[in-house]
Amino acid sequence: MIRVGIVGYGNLAKGVEAALMHTSDMKLEAVFTRRDPATVAIKTSGVPVCPYDSLADYKDKIDVIVNCGGSATDLPVTTPQIAQNFNVIDSFDTHANITSHFANSDEASKKGNKISIISVGWDPGLFSLARVYMNAVLPNGQDYTFWGRGVSQGHSDAIRRIEGVEDARQYTVPVESAVRSVRAGEMPNLSVRDKHTRECYVVAKDGADKKKIEEQIKTMPNYFADYDTTVTFITKEEMAANHSGLPHGGSVIRSGFTGFAGDTPQTVEFSLKLGSNPEFTGSVLIAYARAAYRLSLSGECGCRTVFDIAPALLCEQSAAQLRAHLL
Amino acid sequence: MIRVGIVGYGNLAKGVEAALMHTSDMKLEAVFTRRDPATVAIKTSGVPVCPYDSLADYKDKIDVIVNCGGSATDLPVTTPQIAQNFNVIDSFDTHANITSHFANSDEASKKGNKISIISVGWDPGLFSLARVYMNAVLPNGQDYTFWGRGVSQGHSDAIRRIEGVEDARQYTVPVESAVRSVRAGEMPNLSVRDKHTRECYVVAKDGADKKKIEEQIKTMPNYFADYDTTVTFITKEEMAANHSGLPHGGSVIRSGFTGFAGDTPQTVEFSLKLGSNPEFTGSVLIAYARAAYRLSLSGECGCRTVFDIAPALLCEQSAAQLRAHLL
Repeated sequence: MIRVGIVGYGNLAKGVEAALMHTSDMKLEAVFTRRDPATVAIKTSGVPVCPYDSLADYKDKIDVIVNCGGSATDLPVTTPQIAQNFNVIDSFDTHANITSHFANSDEASKKGNKISIISVGWDPGLFSLARVYMNAVLPNGQDYTFWGRGVSQGHSDAIRRIEGVEDARQYTVPVESAVRSVRAGEMPNLSVRDKHTRECYVVAKDGADKKKIEEQIKTMPNYFADYDTTVTFITKEEMAANHSGLPHGGSVIRSGFTGFAGDTPQTVEFSLKLGSNPEFTGSVLIAYARAAYRLSLSGECGCRTVFDIAPALLCEQSAAQLRAHLL
Repeated sequence: MIRVGIVGYGNLAKGVEAALMHTSDMKLEAVFTRRDPATVAIKTSGVPVCPYDSLADYKDKIDVIVNCGGSATDLPVTTPQIAQNFNVIDSFDTHANITSHFANSDEASKKGNKISIISVGWDPGLFSLARVYMNAVLPNGQDYTFWGRGVSQGHSDAIRRIEGVEDARQYTVPVESAVRSVRAGEMPNLSVRDKHTRECYVVAKDGADKKKIEEQIKTMPNYFADYDTTVTFITKEEMAANHSGLPHGGSVIRSGFTGFAGDTPQTVEFSLKLGSNPEFTGSVLIAYARAAYRLSLSGECGCRTVFDIAPALLCEQSAAQLRAHLL
């Protein structure tokens, strides 16, 4: 059994914990938190919740850590910290800083003779893989990524910071006509506005100026100003009843041309329809945790991304079983 | 420049030759044929067509061979032959014999200190990869493979062998309602007949008994008897005008469940819409030829499948470029 530790215990960590229950070769060994462990109730019975500061005590009791911290301030610090003593996986998703996060994690993992795999999930993660496979086989082409329909946590949080807002949920929605055109291999030129719309559901505080809230959302730079955005005010009860889930999904589509004349159209698509974003992301993290452990067992060390991991390392089944049943 | 040799010069080999024209790090060095080389006119100027028996003379002039023979009788013999002197890729697709073909190629490649990668293409190939990734992240689920709409060469050939048939083209067509149900995550139980229909276009010889031909097609065991099959007689001119291409495609869809209660639905889909089956397959072969060369350079040897190849090895770009632009 591969012994797994989880750092943090938010939605993603719960997704990782649940994913472990669907494997038969991995088990949860401990959860580590910066909160008071007594206040953190996990689902797996008989597994301790420990203070983050005690992590090093588990050096010989845990085979791989799944680091479920946030990308903004947590992971850049904790993944390299953890990497000195453990194999570690994270879901770092700040695209602009991947190069430095990779370098820091690589240095730490090599120091500790361990494996780290960063930026694991679905985007970055499975969508990145789709882009690489598609680019490899169709170098003469163009790819498109559509996200949604799904809840964007970052955009929901941005709305919540507006004065007078009590709660908010933002859905990113791909523009259907754009998806249809890309799927048909038309390779359209699409602006940011052409690809996605943003639907906002907002619970306003009593007496708040709804008109002003709506204007502040729609004109917010980076988050909403470049999109067709709709704002719908709802009650707290409607929010709880209709918007409590965290669905997501999307598609990576690449169209390209092959042949001597370079005019034979070819289209490849990878798409996800997720009932729960954190549960799916947690499941991806667990598959890569298995791979990290196996790589480490075989004597490798340093930082990796999904691009560096042979797919056979992700599955419980042996390479021979995969060849016999899935090839 | 990676120097590539092609063995055979049918449709697939032409797809490989065309794919090489869309790369900037690989070039065609020679084509090898069992036919009289003087009768084989290739598209790339300045490249020799040589007798297959002279292959060994190119041992130090070619970095990787793409073996474009047929799976039935060619590849089981020639891939292990070639593997003793060259890195070699093939598209072996007789699922039942993959284990022995792998073992034979592995032994030969190890003897020659070379890399072979077998069963490369889209099914087996990219579809197999999709199945492995999906199984790894959604162990609690079920996957479905739909093929088409596309030309099946094997089924077309089977019709051509019937007395009175001059030419034939068979399209495999997924049943739309079945695809829709699977995509919706309904995880239906589907028989062979529920998943695909078979459309046959047949040119009959003068005076042939069309009724008898139609009956022989529809009752042919393995090929057609288990399917809803339609037979349409057309003229030679209609065949040339409307059925000269080799389009294909299909989808791998896996639906599964995550979460503590195992009841959160998740659906993943990988799909292809191919203007030309052999050109696309050729493009996949070329990406894996690049990987074989790189693995060999790094000192590895033996047989591999797509499951064993890290995606970063497939692209012209460096690992750092991929991390910066596609992660």
